[in-house]
Amino acid sequence: MTTPAYSPGLEGVIAGETAICTVEGGLSYRGYFVGDLAEHCSFDEVAYLLLYGELPTAARLTAFQARVAAARRLPPPLRDFLAALPKWTTPLDALRTVVSGLAHFDQDASDNSHDANVRKAERLLAQIPVAVADHYSLSRGTTPTLARQDLSHSANFLYMLRRTDPSPEEVKALDVSLILYAEHEFNASTFAARVIASTLSDLHSAVTGAIGALKGPLHGGANEKVVDILTAAGGTPEAAEGWVRGALARKERIMGFGHRVYKAGDVRADILKSYARKAAEAAGSVALEDTADAIERVMAAEKNMHPNLDWPAGRLYHAMKLEIPLYTPIFAMSRIAGWSAHVIEQLDNNRLIRPRALYKGPDRRPVKPIGERG
Amino acid sequence: MTTPAYSPGLEGVIAGETAICTVEGGLSYRGYFVGDLAEHCSFDEVAYLLLYGELPTAARLTAFQARVAAARRLPPPLRDFLAALPKWTTPLDALRTVVSGLAHFDQDASDNSHDANVRKAERLLAQIPVAVADHYSLSRGTTPTLARQDLSHSANFLYMLRRTDPSPEEVKALDVSLILYAEHEFNASTFAARVIASTLSDLHSAVTGAIGALKGPLHGGANEKVVDILTAAGGTPEAAEGWVRGALARKERIMGFGHRVYKAGDVRADILKSYARKAAEAAGSVALEDTADAIERVMAAEKNMHPNLDWPAGRLYHAMKLEIPLYTPIFAMSRIAGWSAHVIEQLDNNRLIRPRALYKGPDRRPVKPIGERG
Repeated sequence: MTTPAYSPGLEGVIAGETAICTVEGGLSYRGYFVGDLAEHCSFDEVAYLLLYGELPTAARLTAFQARVAAARRLPPPLRDFLAALPKWTTPLDALRTVVSGLAHFDQDASDNSHDANVRKAERLLAQIPVAVADHYSLSRGTTPTLARQDLSHSANFLYMLRRTDPSPEEVKALDVSLILYAEHEFNASTFAARVIASTLSDLHSAVTGAIGALKGPLHGGANEKVVDILTAAGGTPEAAEGWVRGALARKERIMGFGHRVYKAGDVRADILKSYARKAAEAAGSVALEDTADAIERVMAAEKNMHPNLDWPAGRLYHAMKLEIPLYTPIFAMSRIAGWSAHVIEQLDNNRLIRPRALYKGPDRRPVKPIGERG
Repeated sequence: MTTPAYSPGLEGVIAGETAICTVEGGLSYRGYFVGDLAEHCSFDEVAYLLLYGELPTAARLTAFQARVAAARRLPPPLRDFLAALPKWTTPLDALRTVVSGLAHFDQDASDNSHDANVRKAERLLAQIPVAVADHYSLSRGTTPTLARQDLSHSANFLYMLRRTDPSPEEVKALDVSLILYAEHEFNASTFAARVIASTLSDLHSAVTGAIGALKGPLHGGANEKVVDILTAAGGTPEAAEGWVRGALARKERIMGFGHRVYKAGDVRADILKSYARKAAEAAGSVALEDTADAIERVMAAEKNMHPNLDWPAGRLYHAMKLEIPLYTPIFAMSRIAGWSAHVIEQLDNNRLIRPRALYKGPDRRPVKPIGERG
């Protein structure tokens, strides 16, 4: 390419190559359709797939789970720091600082080799849910729950939040949501991670930046808005229909709908929808599910806009009685698998990501002495 | 653009618009050539220019300096955390965690408006040198020096490291290096910051990611390698000439040379070179300067490669007796002005930065039961 092309937001621009994921023909990771992975695999298997490129054998899965489980703890200075945070600190902000801080205590901190980065990725996979759960406990003035080594990624997280064993249905539903959140090509947080890694920086730096990107309401922050929308919409299908028509007339953005990449609908939203309804049934009220359906119908008819993954995920977590500020951290405890895979792939075949800008500023001008400036 | 174009590393690809900086016709900030800024302005004036778009009047500069000086302190929990870090923590890693952690204590943390972000940017400008100097003291087992409110950005930093007043020549030389490091269009760290901000995330998240990108040896980390190269080259012009020819024959990368954007030479390197030599003369030995000149001659003749800003900056800081792990943090205490200006510009006219990837992975395949995997 000799003439610089310009597509705002890099929409449609190819920024690199990947063997991890494609959205063509329905989202797939390493060649496996996410619907198949959600149906047949645990999140732990999918995390292994993303990091190692192949689904694990039973022996490899057991060894992987044991390594991850053994790393489920925070260094004491980080936990002390979490305890000293102001009460208004959001869990995702705290997580960003913890992940940056974990770098200082990682035994492979100064080793940027492929193998060291896989080891660091396994530890971050283990530490992120612990950081979220510990901050959750500390922010409520309670002692953090000790992680369990006999539980899967999802089951241990639910256990740490609640101190009771979760049901198999809850673990499966959370697992499916984590499988669907685990990886998504060059989304903004993953792309931020690759830009950071492309200077030959390290995994913790890249993941810290990715968490910062995930925070924004145009990315991970969206799943925290879903329950607000359903509540604002009045909580019944009839009220919701009027509400959404009014919101569209006021040209408001409805979080949970539309996607830069999926114009005809997000397959992940379809997959997770039945889990959200089952969880609502188990919790004893499907009012929000019916409300969501009504909003979906209006959005499709009026705007040809379809739900993205955040739409059922926000409802699922609500039905599971998880607090809203945990929703984006839950996204992070899944996407860490995808972020790590991308950083490792970037470093394995690196080229500095350094685009150009179109200058729209003042023409060249002379510096006036300070006394003559207006 | 209808057909996705692909340029590895986004080389030459326009990724957005900016009014802050252009490299065309010699690097300029807001229309002012960096050579003019380096000659006529202090770093404090240039930081104001980047954040506010215009050079300050005397009254505005005084008020700006007073606001920045008043913010020169860290929240106690962050300082305690710095004190608890393992001894091998590099200053730039510590800085990344501190900047992420400063978000939790910032009074505007939840306000993402233009004005709030300018206030946050002023505070980060103040806090970053304090974090670097405090970590420096704590890592040596000494009590951090209290920041001075009567000194400029550069002078206060040198004072905090040394506990003695710096000479005017040292302050001017450090100021010139900071002016030249302050901003550079869509370099990798700034671009990472814009990607993060483009999800409508916050300034601290974006700057934290930028610091992570700056760490890499293909970016800010390069200035820490310059003295190593000059030392490895033997310390005399004759030895260096042989060393660099040998390194080129072995196809080694010589840090401090070449630049993605400047193929014919980096004007910033030319500007800073005389300051590096003057500082070396003041320190009593120009051996490294003469060695650097010899390497420059060979690189130009053999490879048509020219020094970038890191090449004289590494020597200047060495002549000023600053320790090598401080060099990239010094880059950060300058570039915070450019990063903040870009994040604010991105948020003022946002579009999510979300490119696509070219898929090079396995074809679609079925999920095998775990017992049948090879």
